[in-house]
Order: sequence, then C-alpha cells, then structure tokens
Amino acid sequence: MAVYTEVPDDDLLAFVDEYDIGRVVSCKGIAEGVENSNYLLKTDRGTYILTLYEKRVAEEDLPYFLELLEHLAGHGIPCPVPVHGRDGRVLRRLRERPAAVVTFLSGLPVRRASPAHCRQLGAWLAELHRAGLDFPRERPNALSVGAWRPLFEACPAEGVESLRRGLSVELAGELDLLEANWPTDLPRGVIHGDLFPDNVFFHRGRLSGMIDFYFACNDFLAYDVGVCLNAWCFEPDRSFNVTKARSLLNGYRRVRELSDAEIEALPLLARGAAVRFLLTRMYDWLNYRADAMVKLKDPLEYLQKLRFHRGVVDPAGYLAL
Amino acid sequence: MAVYTEVPDDDLLAFVDEYDIGRVVSCKGIAEGVENSNYLLKTDRGTYILTLYEKRVAEEDLPYFLELLEHLAGHGIPCPVPVHGRDGRVLRRLRERPAAVVTFLSGLPVRRASPAHCRQLGAWLAELHRAGLDFPRERPNALSVGAWRPLFEACPAEGVESLRRGLSVELAGELDLLEANWPTDLPRGVIHGDLFPDNVFFHRGRLSGMIDFYFACNDFLAYDVGVCLNAWCFEPDRSFNVTKARSLLNGYRRVRELSDAEIEALPLLARGAAVRFLLTRMYDWLNYRADAMVKLKDPLEYLQKLRFHRGVVDPAGYLAL
Repeated sequence: MAVYTEVPDDDLLAFVDEYDIGRVVSCKGIAEGVENSNYLLKTDRGTYILTLYEKRVAEEDLPYFLELLEHLAGHGIPCPVPVHGRDGRVLRRLRERPAAVVTFLSGLPVRRASPAHCRQLGAWLAELHRAGLDFPRERPNALSVGAWRPLFEACPAEGVESLRRGLSVELAGELDLLEANWPTDLPRGVIHGDLFPDNVFFHRGRLSGMIDFYFACNDFLAYDVGVCLNAWCFEPDRSFNVTKARSLLNGYRRVRELSDAEIEALPLLARGAAVRFLLTRMYDWLNYRADAMVKLKDPLEYLQKLRFHRGVVDPAGYLAL
Repeated sequence: MAVYTEVPDDDLLAFVDEYDIGRVVSCKGIAEGVENSNYLLKTDRGTYILTLYEKRVAEEDLPYFLELLEHLAGHGIPCPVPVHGRDGRVLRRLRERPAAVVTFLSGLPVRRASPAHCRQLGAWLAELHRAGLDFPRERPNALSVGAWRPLFEACPAEGVESLRRGLSVELAGELDLLEANWPTDLPRGVIHGDLFPDNVFFHRGRLSGMIDFYFACNDFLAYDVGVCLNAWCFEPDRSFNVTKARSLLNGYRRVRELSDAEIEALPLLARGAAVRFLLTRMYDWLNYRADAMVKLKDPLEYLQKLRFHRGVVDPAGYLAL
C-alpha cells in the first residue's frame, strides 16, 4: 500500500507522449505492490499500469524483469506485458526514477482460495516454469539459502526474542540444518518467487493474471512450489489444508512432471521458503519506520508453517501419490 | 493517500450484485482522498468509484453529501453521481462501513494552474453555487468562524510556538478580529468548502470534474471564493498571483455576480479561510499518529497566505474592477 512518488500532470502527459497508447484520460495512484509506486493509467485506447521503481528494486535488475514479462507473455502466460515506447524502449525515467508502462490485467485476488483455485494456480505455475526454460537471462536468487544467515544476523537478538521466546535458538538450528542439507542439483529455471494470492487474479472463476515479478530469479523450480504451498494451502487458523496442497500439486504435475528428487526435496524446500518469508518479515518488523506507509505482515505466521513442514515425514503425504 | 479498509473479493462481488452496473472486472484501492477508503471499480459496463466512509466522516451527514451530488449533477455540474442500487438506495454497508458507488470522472488535477484554469475554476464554482440554490437540505459549516477558537485551543501552545515563535499571539489576535468582524448577512448557499487543485480535474484543457464534497455545507458563497483564492492563486514561492486571482474572479462573475458587500468582504473571508486551513493543518500536525498513512500538509503555508490578505487594503485590487 504505497504511492511513494507523485507524478504531476505535465510530467505525465510528456511521459505518455513517448508511447503510442493514446491520450491520457485519468491516472490514479493505486495501493498495490509495496516496493514501487503504481498508477492505474487510462487513455482513450485502453488501461495500463504505470510503475515508478523505487529504491528497493535494483535498477540493474529491471531489464531482467521487463524482458521476462515480455518473454512469458509471448509464451501465453497471463502476466503484464511491457509497452514499448515510440523509440522501442520499455524502460525510461519519470520523476528521476526508472519507469515502465505495462498492460492491465482483469480480475481480483481471492480471499479464500478454494481447491479449484489452487489447482489452476499449480497449473499456471508449471506453465510459467516451462515458459521460462528458454529465457536467456540469468538472475541469481538474492533471497536463497546463502542470504538467510546474514538476514538473521541483521535482526537484533533481543528483537527476535521479543517476538517469541526461544526463536533465536530455533532459527539458528534451522539455518544449520538448511545450510547443511539444501539441494544442489534439482531442475532449475525461472521462478516467480513471491506468488502469493495477492499477486494472482481470477476473473469469473478462471485465473486471469499473475503479477509482481520483482522477486523473479533463477532457482530450483520446486522451491517455487514450496513458496506456493506456504502461501496458498494454509487456513486462517494456520492448519494445513491437504486438499488444497494436492490440488495445487496435481494441477502443477498435469503441466510439468515433478521428479522423484523434487518430490523428495519438497518438505525441505517448503521449510526453506518458510524461513525466507519469516526472516524478511521479521527484518521488516524489527526495522519498521513509521513513515513507511506499508502494512507489516506477521512473521510468526511463517514460524508455524515452518514447524508444520518440519514434521512432514513423507512428502508423498502432500501428493497422495 | 489511504486505503483504510480492505475489501475481499467475495464481499465485493456480493456488494456489486446489489447494483445494476454489470460484473466486476477489477477493483484497485486508490490513493485519493485522505478521509475515506476509495476503490477504482471496473465492471464490464464502465468505471466507478467505490467509497467506504471511515470514521472521520459523520454517518448522519452522508445523505446530505450524496443527495447534493445527485442534485448538482442534475444541474450539469461535473461531479460524481451516486449510483442507485436495485433497491433504489445509494447508501449501503460494506465491511461494516457506510459505502456508496459513484460515477468515474475523466481528467487529471493540474500541478501548475494557469490563469485559464483559474478562469474555468471560477466559472464552475459559480455554477456550483447557482446549482445549489434550490438544494433543499441544510448542513451548517462545522469549520466556520465559531469552530476556530476551540480548534486553536486544542493545539498545545508549546506545539504552536514550535512551529513559529509568536504564532500563538498572532493567531489569538487574528481570531479576536475575525470573531468581531465576521459577516452575518452575505448571500448564502451550498459551498464546496475544499475546492483545492487536487479536487478538480481537467481533460484536454477543460475542467472535467470536481470531487471530494465531504466538506460541503451551507455558508456564505463568497467564503468559498476565498478558499479558492488561497488554494489556486498563490505561487510555489508563496507570492500572490494577481493575474490568476482576476481570472478566477472574472470567471466567477461571468456566471454569478458578486455584490458590493461580497467584494468588500473578500479580504476578510480569505483571511478566515486561511485561518481555517492553518488551524486544521496545525491540529493534524501536532496530533499526527505514525500509523495514519497520510501526508501532512505544511500549516505555515497558510500563515503566509493569512498575512498576505491581512495587508490587502482595497479588495478591488483582487479584481481590477
């Protein structure tokens, strides 16, 4: 929930003139995406999203993200498509920030994902993974196993303990285990990395959009499945809904098969994914600035998910193979 | 800049079903209006604004505001029009808050108002005043002269002094003068009360929308002119642009004549209007809550406007009569 940068009308009109998208009808700052400033831009030709990239997104990564969107859209993935300017470029500057225009996607995020939503999510995640296989750029995952220890150590121990007594020791042990056992040879490719229900739109019951690719990178494909199991298959009371998990995984496997090694690794990958979000949420929680205009998310939600996956003995339980 | 209340998809779909406006295509929280939660709602029939009224707007005032919009729109004023539900009602509840759907207006606010913008603004302000003359409801101005002293006294003196040394004494004296000399018999009617450039849209150079009527009330029409002189005719360096002021006033007078008494009262009304915004901004400044997710506005901007009007000897100077 954030519009960090205001765009005055004369700057906007000059900016939009660089594109062949018609004349501006309106432009509203929208509360979507916590990392950037986003505007819903209406012209007499259509509706677009204008994004100003704020400092949390590294400027050198923007070509990766924008070319990825174009690549995926070209492979039929319902993601925003960057609009080329009259000069051919998709990235330019507005209010001293990198800025891009992408197409608008219909649909709404769902509050309560049903198994049918999870099945579609799984299938489209697999389509995304397949479509990414021939994407030529590489971007390492800056939030994978190697980044967790430094992130943990950047959280003051007394702060961590204030969240939950004993959490420092529990997390230190978890990191030891993940570092020692993290896979090295699973199938790799482009992952979304942050495919939470907020980032997925449904329109009349069908998945109509996947957005917010600013954590996309190259990593184990099955890790992305772990992220989604955490984000889609727990209930508000924090219980794990095995029907949704099976729907998600079966949807996925109808499009892309999971190898035995990937299935075997799923509980560990899901633990890692839980630790990744636990740590970033904890870091934000302990370093919150009052002027940030964002809603904090509860880190402990992910502690419970972590503990759940720690108790999974047989990954086939996720799948009902 | 605020979306205080999230609207989950199932609540939204059920709510929109109460209207005959088609099926929801998308719904985005927008950073517009600091008092309420606003959503830009697209359906397969058109675009609308969905507003959830938060606690800063008194629920008993909502019929006044919504009926006023309908009345003004019926008189050709380019303002949002409340959409009636299938049951005929314009006001219902969503997420335990009063909520309404209004039509969407094209256009953008201007950053640098030109004299031509000011002329149109003046003309449309006068049209609004004329259109309001036969509006049957009454709502007193809760932020007029009688409210200023209590507002001033609710600001801790040390806080006021921290803004500007000597400000307490200066404001106390100003309030004495305004209370003693405030007019009692100028032409009255519906005023907008907050017609700042943010609340006025232009599309291709023409005024296309006036929004945010949540300070509308019955008061001296010329007081509304004073609010607009303050909001539209000062430059970023805080100098008064007499060309813009004349354009605004001449635009106004082409639609509705100002009486000699109104012209005579203008400097005092503009001083009062400056005090009103100085006080509310100062109050917000000194009572800021870190979680408010709104941008504060500088109270002292209005101190300089106040001082300018205090020095106006001949109101004809505004007008070049």
